Amino acid sequence: ENILEVKPVIYRQITVPEHGGKEYCTDSGLVVPSVPYELHKRLLEAAERWGLSLERRLETIGVCSSQMALTLLGGPNRLTPKNVHQRPTVVLLCGPHIQGAQGISCGRHLANHEVEVILFLPNFVKMQESVTSEVHLYSRTNSKQVAGVKDLPTSPVDLVINCMGCHENPTLREQTWYQSAANWANQNRAPVLSIDPAVSGEHQTVEAKWTLFLGLPLPLSETESRVYLCDIGIPKLVFQEVGISYHSPFGCKFVIPLHTA
Amino acid sequence: ENILEVKPVIYRQITVPEHGGKEYCTDSGLVVPSVPYELHKRLLEAAERWGLSLERRLETIGVCSSQMALTLLGGPNRLTPKNVHQRPTVVLLCGPHIQGAQGISCGRHLANHEVEVILFLPNFVKMQESVTSEVHLYSRTNSKQVAGVKDLPTSPVDLVINCMGCHENPTLREQTWYQSAANWANQNRAPVLSIDPAVSGEHQTVEAKWTLFLGLPLPLSETESRVYLCDIGIPKLVFQEVGISYHSPFGCKFVIPLHTA
Repeated sequence: ENILEVKPVIYRQITVPEHGGKEYCTDSGLVVPSVPYELHKRLLEAAERWGLSLERRLETIGVCSSQMALTLLGGPNRLTPKNVHQRPTVVLLCGPHIQGAQGISCGRHLANHEVEVILFLPNFVKMQESVTSEVHLYSRTNSKQVAGVKDLPTSPVDLVINCMGCHENPTLREQTWYQSAANWANQNRAPVLSIDPAVSGEHQTVEAKWTLFLGLPLPLSETESRVYLCDIGIPKLVFQEVGISYHSPFGCKFVIPLHTA
Repeated sequence: ENILEVKPVIYRQITVPEHGGKEYCTDSGLVVPSVPYELHKRLLEAAERWGLSLERRLETIGVCSSQMALTLLGGPNRLTPKNVHQRPTVVLLCGPHIQGAQGISCGRHLANHEVEVILFLPNFVKMQESVTSEVHLYSRTNSKQVAGVKDLPTSPVDLVINCMGCHENPTLREQTWYQSAANWANQNRAPVLSIDPAVSGEHQTVEAKWTLFLGLPLPLSETESRVYLCDIGIPKLVFQEVGISYHSPFGCKFVIPLHTA
């Protein structure tokens, strides 16, 4: 009874019914497969049926992505009472869709942590309700909101967060507002964090230094971007419902780096 | 232009219209006053009017309190793929109210991180909707749920999380289920984390090693408990609406320790 049986570590703990075509692994070697967008969508829909609503998800993504951004900005070294007069500046580029709403939630949490946030959101006639309600709440932070690229800073900011892409509407990136904001981002010398970007065969229009995926990664085409994964609170049996056998790769974290396997 | 003007650090950045009777300070010396429960309630109500719904709050509290609990359990040293066969066990003691729902959200996130969670929730005829929807989602983690103290472990667990107290109904703690669960907790040798406990002149029925408050602290009567504060995502102008002048004491964190000033 005193002899502890050492069981072998299983590194392939997540299996998916449809493969996204790319495999990642965590720092400790756990394999995390990518999934196609359609399967990812079914996973979120199953979670919503069990009560993990879009509103809840927006909040989790806001908290966890802002935690990641705060680390990228320098974390405890940067945000102390002593350098409150040198607050970091973050520009959020958001489209009129769920990805945009996720970015605005992130922006609110950053502003709550005394980061200088500038939200870029073009004027649209039709805006998803999730976007307008995030904007409503964001307005209470007293941070800036602009609708045109001309109102964005010309000097480099500390971080750009890109939430302009939309999985459901890939033609969005051909529109003028998208193109001009993408040009602004690529010209500003700030590093870019993309949250939940739409992946396609083509190159990303905004070159991201970091990319944050939600729950499970999508297959990002070969870029220099470093991939991160965010735990969005979906329980194991919900994964199972869409055919995914899942064990958490997160350990004690909510955001982890992934490496190309 | 090369001379940087060093402005003095202001340590008293939060002022409240009604004082809770106790003052705390952060690691870096920022003063955080306590507030009476009634003001805290008005703050949450104002946040809800701006769209920071109970559902969103439940998710933020679940994420942040589980992050705290994961740290208390040993964090990266404890939760690695190599000791997956020695998962930590956490018992959650929940009542049929918002505080209970907060605890269940915490429990789901812990279970998602491969912690062995046992939820204690007595059978009630009337249960708040927020509680039943949390239980519904929690059930998808495949973790245990018990309704009686006799089904709780007799040997010490790694952590007990106490969410039985209710601000609105202090007589709850005189009920049998509450008393027997409190006795179980005090007899089990596990350390206790209390989330959002009801404070009153009397002693806490369950002795907590750590106490987590939300947004702003309530005045905890003199105990040995170490006090922590959780950022629940309320923007500055919402604080202002209820007469609180607020600057974030959180720096880059979402949960910080507070000390008696």
